Amino acid sequence: MLHLQSDSATQWLHQVDQYLDEILIDHAHCERKAASTAMNLMNSYTENRDLCREMTRIVEEELEHFEMVLQILEKRGISFRRLASGPYGRRLNKLVRMAEPERAVDRLLIASLIEARSCERFSLLSEHVKEKEPELADFYAGLFESEARHHTTYVRLAEHFASRDAVRQRLDQLSAEEAAILAEGSDLPRMHS
Amino acid sequence: MLHLQSDSATQWLHQVDQYLDEILIDHAHCERKAASTAMNLMNSYTENRDLCREMTRIVEEELEHFEMVLQILEKRGISFRRLASGPYGRRLNKLVRMAEPERAVDRLLIASLIEARSCERFSLLSEHVKEKEPELADFYAGLFESEARHHTTYVRLAEHFASRDAVRQRLDQLSAEEAAILAEGSDLPRMHS
Repeated sequence: MLHLQSDSATQWLHQVDQYLDEILIDHAHCERKAASTAMNLMNSYTENRDLCREMTRIVEEELEHFEMVLQILEKRGISFRRLASGPYGRRLNKLVRMAEPERAVDRLLIASLIEARSCERFSLLSEHVKEKEPELADFYAGLFESEARHHTTYVRLAEHFASRDAVRQRLDQLSAEEAAILAEGSDLPRMHS
Repeated sequence: MLHLQSDSATQWLHQVDQYLDEILIDHAHCERKAASTAMNLMNSYTENRDLCREMTRIVEEELEHFEMVLQILEKRGISFRRLASGPYGRRLNKLVRMAEPERAVDRLLIASLIEARSCERFSLLSEHVKEKEPELADFYAGLFESEARHHTTYVRLAEHFASRDAVRQRLDQLSAEEAAILAEGSDLPRMHS
């Protein structure tokens, strides 16, 4: 359902155990960036009514999640700060083709894959921290549904810009790339390291 | 209260009479752009908790207004499309100083002035179209309060980055520039022509 071609490595869960605070800070940035991505798509394809309506909803939900993570940080006494970005988003965005309508398809499908990976990781995280951090586990579980829905929405919107077959084929290519990028790993502990 | 140094010219109301459809389309774009401005400020000054909270609220309100204007366009059978931008926003943004924290002050104050001008114009518009377009008049009147509040919020947030006196002085300079830009007028019928 999520069109991912790999499961997250246990290596990532070791990073979570060692650097949970940093992962939480990065999570807040991810929510803010997800809202920005949706806003940028609305700016680029503003004549598309369906896209604008869906992006409005996604912006609002991501900003609500951003606020929720900031509250968790406050409660835990972690101060929110800038973090160097890991390579994940940058490398995925390099795969976007320049010409339209391929560009629209790629931007939407990459957004869909980032949502899918977040979804997979929230599920893992929720299970992983259940014993020690039941409140955090509930929070992650609560995010699962909306990230899965965002994934589906982005894939559906890509079909405004290419045929269903072309979208499915490109999604396969991009999700293979996504799995390859993650397989290399990164020393920076992040939501998508 | 709005820190504006001029009233809108009757020339602008003539444009409204002649090109109401185009003004409505531009209004939709203005709401979307206002949401983007708030999102960009959140991205730039993300460690500022107060700013993030206020920007979240502004993004949500502007997107709600965007949706409302799109519905008005639909109802009137006007198709939403891209428009060439008038000079107003571009010329205001050129006044932003490069170095921080002056840059933050200027970005926030320019956002505050655009909100103030929108507020003044919604009030004028509401009065102007009252007889012929009572529904539209109500809509404009309803936007007045939120735009005025956004103006105040942006001015208050600028005081995170400079003293109250410095903010007030810069606001005077920028609002003089804003009035001068508007006084030149523009042939493109826009919310801020």
